[in-house]
Amino acid sequence: MPQFLDSTAPDFDDRFAALLTMKREDAPDVDDAVAAIIADVRARGDLAVCELTSRFDRLDLTPDTMRVTAAEIAKAAAQVSAEDRAALETAAARIRAYHERQMPEDASWTDDTGATLGWRWGPVDAAGLYVPGGLASYPSSVLMNAVPARVAGVGRLVMCVPTPDGIVNPLVLLAAQISGVTEIYRIGGAQAVAAMAYGTETIAPVDKITGPGNAFVAAAKRRVFGRVGIDMIAGPSEILVIADAENDPDWIAVDLLSQAEHDESAQSILITDDAAFGQAVAAAVEARLTTLQRAHIAGPSWRDFGAIVVVRDLEEAARLSNRIAPEHLELAVADPDALADRITHAGAIFLGQWTPEAIGDYVGGPNHVLPTARSARFSSGLSVMDFVKRTTLARMTPESLRAIGPAAVRLATSESLEAHGLSVQARLDRLNR
Amino acid sequence: MPQFLDSTAPDFDDRFAALLTMKREDAPDVDDAVAAIIADVRARGDLAVCELTSRFDRLDLTPDTMRVTAAEIAKAAAQVSAEDRAALETAAARIRAYHERQMPEDASWTDDTGATLGWRWGPVDAAGLYVPGGLASYPSSVLMNAVPARVAGVGRLVMCVPTPDGIVNPLVLLAAQISGVTEIYRIGGAQAVAAMAYGTETIAPVDKITGPGNAFVAAAKRRVFGRVGIDMIAGPSEILVIADAENDPDWIAVDLLSQAEHDESAQSILITDDAAFGQAVAAAVEARLTTLQRAHIAGPSWRDFGAIVVVRDLEEAARLSNRIAPEHLELAVADPDALADRITHAGAIFLGQWTPEAIGDYVGGPNHVLPTARSARFSSGLSVMDFVKRTTLARMTPESLRAIGPAAVRLATSESLEAHGLSVQARLDRLNR
Repeated sequence: MPQFLDSTAPDFDDRFAALLTMKREDAPDVDDAVAAIIADVRARGDLAVCELTSRFDRLDLTPDTMRVTAAEIAKAAAQVSAEDRAALETAAARIRAYHERQMPEDASWTDDTGATLGWRWGPVDAAGLYVPGGLASYPSSVLMNAVPARVAGVGRLVMCVPTPDGIVNPLVLLAAQISGVTEIYRIGGAQAVAAMAYGTETIAPVDKITGPGNAFVAAAKRRVFGRVGIDMIAGPSEILVIADAENDPDWIAVDLLSQAEHDESAQSILITDDAAFGQAVAAAVEARLTTLQRAHIAGPSWRDFGAIVVVRDLEEAARLSNRIAPEHLELAVADPDALADRITHAGAIFLGQWTPEAIGDYVGGPNHVLPTARSARFSSGLSVMDFVKRTTLARMTPESLRAIGPAAVRLATSESLEAHGLSVQARLDRLNR
Repeated sequence: MPQFLDSTAPDFDDRFAALLTMKREDAPDVDDAVAAIIADVRARGDLAVCELTSRFDRLDLTPDTMRVTAAEIAKAAAQVSAEDRAALETAAARIRAYHERQMPEDASWTDDTGATLGWRWGPVDAAGLYVPGGLASYPSSVLMNAVPARVAGVGRLVMCVPTPDGIVNPLVLLAAQISGVTEIYRIGGAQAVAAMAYGTETIAPVDKITGPGNAFVAAAKRRVFGRVGIDMIAGPSEILVIADAENDPDWIAVDLLSQAEHDESAQSILITDDAAFGQAVAAAVEARLTTLQRAHIAGPSWRDFGAIVVVRDLEEAARLSNRIAPEHLELAVADPDALADRITHAGAIFLGQWTPEAIGDYVGGPNHVLPTARSARFSSGLSVMDFVKRTTLARMTPESLRAIGPAAVRLATSESLEAHGLSVQARLDRLNR
C-alpha cells in the first residue's frame, strides 16, 4: 500500500515535505567511464565507435555498416501491421499539427528614435536524436523528438539507436521514417552521443542532441553540453491526479499505474477531497496489480513512492500541486478549467475525466517529453523552441544614435570600458562636426 | 599584430579551422572546492555563508547584515550623478520596451475531434541574479538580467553581489532599484549561488539563477543546475565585424577593441572584402592601443586571438560567419539587410555602420547576454523566455477519445505498456457499453 496523508493531521507538513524531497533514484556514477568513452571517440572516431559497439552491444560493425540502409528501413516498415502503421501515422499527424502552432514569430519595428529593432528565429542545422534500445525502445518517443525538429525546419536529423545483438524494433524505424529522420545509425550509449557531438569519419557532427537514455547516455549528454545543445536530463516519470469523488476509482487507478509501470522509481500521487474515494482508488490499484503484466515494476513503484493525499478542498489540492510541480497533472474534477486556473507549475495538464494521461503519451498532440523532479517550476517540455534559436537585430540611424548614443557613452565610462564609449563617440563626433 | 588570413591562400581552410577551434581559456578546475562550498551552505546555511564571505571577501557579516537595507540602497542611489541616473533610466526603459515584445502568447483551440488543446505560459516564482563584484561589477548587466525577469512577471527577484572589503558600486544598487530587484544580499561566489539554489535561514530559495561570474560561480551554476534553472555558462566575449571598404578604419578599430578590452581571452575578428582596408584597420587598432586605458587587456586579446580575414566577396563572408556563429556580428556594409539575410547563426546582429556593437551593450534594447563559443548554432541570448515556462493543456471529450483513443491503445500495446492502454480502454469500454 502507498502512503496515506491527511492534510488536517498534525504531522502533515512534515510528511508532505518528505514526499517532495524523497530520493527515488540512485543513479550509478558512470562519469569517469563516460569521459573515457568520449575521449576515445574523439581520438579514434569510427574505429572507437565500432569497438565500443562490439563490446557493449555484442554487434560487430564496420564504418560501412554503422548506418541503417534505406532497404533495411523499408524491410522493417513492411513488417509492421497496417493497424500499427495507421496508429503511428495518426499520432505523427496530431503531434505535427500541435507543434506547428508553436513556431515562434519574427519581429521587426522602428522605435521613436528611428532605430529598427527586432529578432529572427532560425532552426539549428542538424539535430541528433537518441533512442534507447531494448525494452525502452519506444516508437512514440521517436515521434515526440523528431516531429518538433522537422517542424522547426531542421534539415539534417540524425537518429542513433543501439541494436543489441542486432535486434531492432521495426516500429522504431518506421516511426523515424514517418517523422522525417534523415540518417539512422545502429549505435548507442555514450559512444553514440560522443559521435553525434564531435563527429566521426562517417557521422557528421550535430548541433543539438535530444532524447532519453540510461545513465551512460545522461552522463554523456551532460558532458557534451556546451559543445552542442541538449534537452533536459529527465528523471523517473511522475503523475499527480487530482480527483473528486465523482470518478470511477478504477479509471483513476489505471491512470496512476500508467506511470508506475514505467519504472520502479516512478511516482504516482492522488490528491482527493474525499477520503473514502481515496480508499476506493487504493483498492482498485491493488485489484489491477493482481493481473497487470508489469506489476513487478508498477507494484514496487506504487508501494515505495505512491501516495494518496486527502485534502479539505480543491483549492488546497491546487496549492499542494504547485509545490509538487508535477510532470503530468490530471484534473479529474467537475470543473477542471477552474482548477487549472489555480495551477502555476506543471509540465502538462490533462483536463477532465475523459483525458487520461496516456492519451498525451501518444496521440493527444502535446509533447510527452516533460520536466520531471519538480523542474516544471522553471522549465518546459520539449517543443519546437528546442530546435530554433533567436538572433536579435538592431539598426541605428544617425538620428537614433544621436538620441541614445550619449547614454551609452555615459554608461561605458561608468564601467571603465573606454573602447565601448569610443566606438559610439567616434560616430557622434562625425555627426557633430 | 593579429593573424591575417586570405581566403584565396592554399592554407586558408586549415588556418580558418584553427581559428574556429582556438583554445582561448584555461578555466581553473575549482569543481572540488565548489562542491565543498555548496555542501557547507546546504549543511550550515547562513553560518556557512557568513564564514565564507569573511574568508573570501574580507567582510564580516551576520545573518542580520547580509541583506542590503533600503536605507543603504537609497544612500547609494543619492551618490549617483543625475547624468548617470538618467543614462541608466534610458537604458532600462529601452530594454524593457524591447523585452515586453518577447512575451510569448498562450494558445487554445479545438480540433476536428472536439478535443481542446493548447498551452499556457507562466513566470517562475523567484529568480536569482548574480552580479560580480570588483572590476566586472557592471550596472548594465543588472539591467539586462533583471528587466527581462520583471517583464516576465517574476514576483521575487533576488540579487547577490559580493562587496569585497565592504566596497559596493552605487550604480549597481541603483540599477537594481530601477529594474525592480526585490532583495539584495552582499554575498558572492559559489556560496551565493548555493544560498540562492538551496536557501538558508535568511535567503529563501529561488527557481532560476542567471548572471555572469568567475570560475567559482560558473562551476556552482553547473552543479546546482537541475535543482534550479540556470542561464548559459558564458565564455569570453567575441565580436565579428564584416566590413567593406566604405568604412572609417578607426570606427571599425574601436569596435574590435570594444570586445578586446573585456578580457585577454576575448576574440575580435574582422572579415573584409578589401585587403587594403583590412591593413588600414590593423593600423588604426595599433594607433588606438597606444592610448587606450585598457590596452594591457585589449592588446594581448587582439594579438593572441584577433584576426583579419580577407575574402573574395560578401557572400563568402556570410558563409565564414555562419561557421563562426559569432556572439556579436556587426555588418558594416552598404546593404546590411541583404547580408543579414544570409546569416544563419549569430547571437546578435548590428546592422550598418551607425550601429556599433557597444550600443547593444547598453541602450539598444536587445539583451547583451548572448551565446559565446559558437553556441549561437543552437542557443539564444537571454530573454523573457528564460523566466517563463510552458504548461501544455489537453482536454478530450467522449467523442474525441472515441476518435483517437484506439490509436493510443494500439501504440501502448506495441510498447508493452499495458496500463497505458488500459487507462484509455477503460474509458472506451464505458462509451461502447
